Amino acid sequence: MTIREQVHAMKLLSPVMAATDTETKNAALLKAADALEARRDEIFAANSKDMEAAGKSGIKEAVIKRLKFDDGKLLACTEGLRQLASLPDPVGRITLKREMDQDLVLSRITVPIGVIGVIFEARPDAMVQISGLCIKSGNCAILKGGRESQETCRVLFSVIREAAENAGLPAGALMQVSLHEEIDEILKLDEDVDLLIPRGSNAFVRYIMDHTRIPVMGHAEGICHIYVDASADQEMAVRVILDAKTTYPAACNAVETVLVSRTIAGEFLPRLAKALADAQVAVRGDKEVAGIIAVEGETLSDSDYHTEYGDLTLALKLVDGVDEAIRHINAYGSRHTDAIIAGEREPVEKFFALVDSAGVYHNCSTRFADGFRYGFGAEVGISTGKLHARGPVGLDGLTTYRYLIEGAGQCVGEYTEGRRSFHFRDL
Amino acid sequence: MTIREQVHAMKLLSPVMAATDTETKNAALLKAADALEARRDEIFAANSKDMEAAGKSGIKEAVIKRLKFDDGKLLACTEGLRQLASLPDPVGRITLKREMDQDLVLSRITVPIGVIGVIFEARPDAMVQISGLCIKSGNCAILKGGRESQETCRVLFSVIREAAENAGLPAGALMQVSLHEEIDEILKLDEDVDLLIPRGSNAFVRYIMDHTRIPVMGHAEGICHIYVDASADQEMAVRVILDAKTTYPAACNAVETVLVSRTIAGEFLPRLAKALADAQVAVRGDKEVAGIIAVEGETLSDSDYHTEYGDLTLALKLVDGVDEAIRHINAYGSRHTDAIIAGEREPVEKFFALVDSAGVYHNCSTRFADGFRYGFGAEVGISTGKLHARGPVGLDGLTTYRYLIEGAGQCVGEYTEGRRSFHFRDL
Repeated sequence: MTIREQVHAMKLLSPVMAATDTETKNAALLKAADALEARRDEIFAANSKDMEAAGKSGIKEAVIKRLKFDDGKLLACTEGLRQLASLPDPVGRITLKREMDQDLVLSRITVPIGVIGVIFEARPDAMVQISGLCIKSGNCAILKGGRESQETCRVLFSVIREAAENAGLPAGALMQVSLHEEIDEILKLDEDVDLLIPRGSNAFVRYIMDHTRIPVMGHAEGICHIYVDASADQEMAVRVILDAKTTYPAACNAVETVLVSRTIAGEFLPRLAKALADAQVAVRGDKEVAGIIAVEGETLSDSDYHTEYGDLTLALKLVDGVDEAIRHINAYGSRHTDAIIAGEREPVEKFFALVDSAGVYHNCSTRFADGFRYGFGAEVGISTGKLHARGPVGLDGLTTYRYLIEGAGQCVGEYTEGRRSFHFRDL
Repeated sequence: MTIREQVHAMKLLSPVMAATDTETKNAALLKAADALEARRDEIFAANSKDMEAAGKSGIKEAVIKRLKFDDGKLLACTEGLRQLASLPDPVGRITLKREMDQDLVLSRITVPIGVIGVIFEARPDAMVQISGLCIKSGNCAILKGGRESQETCRVLFSVIREAAENAGLPAGALMQVSLHEEIDEILKLDEDVDLLIPRGSNAFVRYIMDHTRIPVMGHAEGICHIYVDASADQEMAVRVILDAKTTYPAACNAVETVLVSRTIAGEFLPRLAKALADAQVAVRGDKEVAGIIAVEGETLSDSDYHTEYGDLTLALKLVDGVDEAIRHINAYGSRHTDAIIAGEREPVEKFFALVDSAGVYHNCSTRFADGFRYGFGAEVGISTGKLHARGPVGLDGLTTYRYLIEGAGQCVGEYTEGRRSFHFRDL
């Protein structure tokens, strides 16, 4: 079968996968966790091959670190699967039940989205996490890992698929593709693939978004801001900024630009600059900032504030107050996560009301934008789109709903002609 | 300002529109209703011009009927606006409130989507209904009516915009465009337009979907099915099929194909054929159907069952039972609305579990698929997509959500290093 035929068959199978009961899905997750432990040697052997190939081809240290699949990663994977099994089923929840008329009852019930394509770079543990989320949410999944992790992903996928099918999930509900040309083929299958979730570099996500008509969930960029108001606790501001910049600079929820109220700039900037220097963070800024503290490289112009550094670099800018901060964020941000540090209530209320981002925080680090930290148990990624799920996307974001009506032979003509009438009563 | 600049300005304004309080939005709706009544003569005069032009250019009778804006349509519009004012505000609802740790509280709150482009053909009353929905849901709206209704739409729009601004809505939150080239320009503005809602013919909606990267909510096709099970009350089946086919054949929720269990075909088909003939419905079918009753035109082959007739034509097909019916619907339908007529419970459960459509009904007409009939008060349209809102889309479908966190200086490092831990408690 061609990829197109396989995906079409998966689409026709997806209602069967969607109707799979909770017990079977949980059994699949637990069996997969057991099988991963049982076949650890095979998995580690495959990972050694990937690591060897990566070493030879001179791949960056950070990528090699993500590529490594060791006992720690295995434990995180099996714990994640077992935790997923313990979570409530996101499918089959009745979110509306309404009597439209006598013996005419409308319900709205959560259902899986259908066929989801997940395309991710480097990290092989993403294969396990995402397969688990798709199984629990009753979605069929097409999984494509990065070329660097192909040996590891192949073994991980075969372990999970076998376990899933042994537990009674429909054969063919999970599919792996490994060639880049196969991805290009899948990007064309908007009739059969309901959703794409790309995880990887900005350029990679942008490529996917630009080459398909399938809805894409995720984010190309994470340009997060922290605004330090004149009323801020400055010690707290320094601490939060350091956390948001340095704990994982490559993460999408790391801060890229700090906006500072002009009122406190003379006092606060030198203090912040010292802490950033101690943490090896390079500071960039426009002429105004450069007039107060030393900045690296050329001074910034407005268009530079669109930059996601992704490393230990931070842009600074002064603003008149919360209104200018909000305007800057809405114009230069990526609608991911933005925070205000303030002691007074008024600027916080404004910031909460007017910043148009998936996450808007007061007095805490932008790095809390994460499915685990929100208590969702797991996430498939963070969405900066406005449609469907927004922010960290957990199991609920992999579902949609369907309306069911139970009737007793009712016709619309009876209502439009006035012989019967609706009396809407929520049950 | 160019269209691009106007839309970009609207995007930057959209958070202000989003933060508008309920009282102001309701006042805008009520003032708009009053103003429409006060300026009825001006509206009717504009409509006469459109009707005259339409008469001269030989437009179809059905289009002219939709174009006419008379006292009845005016009343429906003003009643609709006043009803919208009485509905609860869909914005600002807290749908999750969770203590992540001491003094670290996560909330999820509903917010408008932002900037919505609504493009509709012929019916000028859609201009009023959709403006009202956008105002109530706090969205900025770009509205484009059909060329045939341009005079009427221009007056309706100016009445609504003036009323909205008098009530205190931000100037520029509603915008009208009238040229087709302007639409082509808007289709390119995926950075600033969050959602497009096209309403009109299949070809029109398909054109929009094919020419933009902006998410589109709606449906290109409505290929609805009714499956008549062997256990059906046959009198009920005939009655429901007639209702679903004849009460508004051009509607997207009208039935196009009826699937009949082979077990009862010999008895049921002649009975159905007689009722359809009495109602002037032309029957089409494949060879098997043609062997039992007379069919119009050539006998159908499988690929013909993809057709949305939109008039008094109905396709028939025999199936072995509910399993084959479900397979046919999932393969040939448009995931809009499909119904089963059955007396026994088992086929109904299967049908509900496995038909992958926005609406799945038992023993009632497919024509119940409608926002008013679901009790949503109003609808912007019916969505057959899997992402975001599905089925009839009311006010809730025009909102998304944002996550807010209130902290006290918390940093992620404290949690990853184990100095603090989350204790998730829903409030």
